[in-house]
Amino acid sequence: MDFNEENSADVVVASLSTMREEDARLKEILTSAIRHMHAFVRETRLTTAEWEAGIEFLTAVGQTCTDTRQEFILFSDSMGVSMLVETINGAEGEIREWDDLSPTASTVMGPFHMTVSPERQLGDLINDTGRGEPLVVEGSVTDLEGNPLAGARVDTWQSDGEGFYDVQVDYLPPGTGRGVFTTDEGGYFWYRSVMPRHYPMPVDGPGGALVVREGRDIYRPAHLHFIAEADGYQSLTTHAFVSDCPYIERDVVFAVKRSLIRDFVTIDDPEEAARFGVASPFRHVRFDIVLAPSETTVESGYQGVQT
Amino acid sequence: MDFNEENSADVVVASLSTMREEDARLKEILTSAIRHMHAFVRETRLTTAEWEAGIEFLTAVGQTCTDTRQEFILFSDSMGVSMLVETINGAEGEIREWDDLSPTASTVMGPFHMTVSPERQLGDLINDTGRGEPLVVEGSVTDLEGNPLAGARVDTWQSDGEGFYDVQVDYLPPGTGRGVFTTDEGGYFWYRSVMPRHYPMPVDGPGGALVVREGRDIYRPAHLHFIAEADGYQSLTTHAFVSDCPYIERDVVFAVKRSLIRDFVTIDDPEEAARFGVASPFRHVRFDIVLAPSETTVESGYQGVQT
Repeated sequence: MDFNEENSADVVVASLSTMREEDARLKEILTSAIRHMHAFVRETRLTTAEWEAGIEFLTAVGQTCTDTRQEFILFSDSMGVSMLVETINGAEGEIREWDDLSPTASTVMGPFHMTVSPERQLGDLINDTGRGEPLVVEGSVTDLEGNPLAGARVDTWQSDGEGFYDVQVDYLPPGTGRGVFTTDEGGYFWYRSVMPRHYPMPVDGPGGALVVREGRDIYRPAHLHFIAEADGYQSLTTHAFVSDCPYIERDVVFAVKRSLIRDFVTIDDPEEAARFGVASPFRHVRFDIVLAPSETTVESGYQGVQT
Repeated sequence: MDFNEENSADVVVASLSTMREEDARLKEILTSAIRHMHAFVRETRLTTAEWEAGIEFLTAVGQTCTDTRQEFILFSDSMGVSMLVETINGAEGEIREWDDLSPTASTVMGPFHMTVSPERQLGDLINDTGRGEPLVVEGSVTDLEGNPLAGARVDTWQSDGEGFYDVQVDYLPPGTGRGVFTTDEGGYFWYRSVMPRHYPMPVDGPGGALVVREGRDIYRPAHLHFIAEADGYQSLTTHAFVSDCPYIERDVVFAVKRSLIRDFVTIDDPEEAARFGVASPFRHVRFDIVLAPSETTVESGYQGVQT
């Protein structure tokens, strides 16, 4: 009965008082969410029509999600929330004095990791459409002392030369531009693909439409996605960004970190091309991944709400 | 490039700098939303797994919505956000010295106003299933001086005696428990129905499942919903609450206001029953609605994001 404008968040938070001990972390998260939602409504003096528009927007974002599309991640990305979560949790070059290398910086996963990437062999061509500039990717996975991690899994996914992922267009067979590679005894991996291109955030859904309405650049600079995993090491989600992309300074999801930018060098040398099994000229990038040991991982007990 | 934990919200808000003049209000709302979302992530040190659980939760809430179910309103209701919006915007007994009456207090709309209520004639029986305790509702719509408002529209919807709305169960034909009535020359309306019952928030979706996990009471006390509208007056969304309901003090959506509680009197009098065309005994409630003039309405220009 005491609900009023001043104490509304307190009243709702008080209703959580009977939550179970084992849900203490969920309670902490809900308490913060309730306080911020109420402060937002009070601060903006949100009208009923605006609340309704907000409900409609969130509903439309949820309904735009499918097996191959994640509009809430897109919304989180464009609001900088995903990148903030990455910044708080991700390894960010915190070199310790006894280590030789910094762990590779993390960045957002983005909304396109919606399918299982096919298992590939080292050297495989992951985009065989014959369209786009040939690209050779070489890299390694090591620990903080530079020791190679054999048998590490490197999951990669990327746009094609037009800026599209396989899940977005019919002309790309499923799995195109994706692959899971396993590093060899030297911690080494390599594969062939095409140059990724900068691309607009999809704007045919409510999340993208909002970014358009905000009058912002809607582009993501060209990049390759990676998730690197090895037993005993922290899983790493990151990008390799293309240094000469025109959008490198104005990523719509704020995900660019200096340490992740690479030169994708043009090589016009038929012998080198033949060595990699590609046409000349081609582009080449080296992306070495350094993983931090998993003992420094902060794990949360909260596994979401089961429905 | 400057994105870091301390300035992340500033960086994202700065990206709104090119929004159009006419979207100034939307910009204000987004700025507040961005600052609160970022503060929430920082405060809780949200882990990547927790962020993923949040994305999954919001997606599930959106995907649970259908033409007849609004899970985001349910979520907003259970977090007290809907009631806060109502509290900020609704008429709340602000009697002015030159008025004779206070406008009727508003409360939440709830998630079940998903269909168009059928047009009814005064005295109609809006639940003809033959199940439930007979109820007669009488009321009036007046201005602040008590002058009757003829031709006012009174949209009502309610649960049946089991606590279900027509949109929830197959055994209730569509339109059962709903009706739009038009007041007569005396501003009067009446109709016949059955007693509503307290009911649990639906817990088969993610919004309700969260409330269960919170260990809270999941019930809404028995009530009738109303939206009253008349030309020149502020539209009013409200409830009439049943005074002797066991959940009257612990509404899961915090929507009870003292001034909206009514005694639903039991009348055991065959003559009175015959006058209303119901069986004896029956329950009777009087709910008089007082509307404030529309010149005091604050209208917002923001009409949501068109996609």
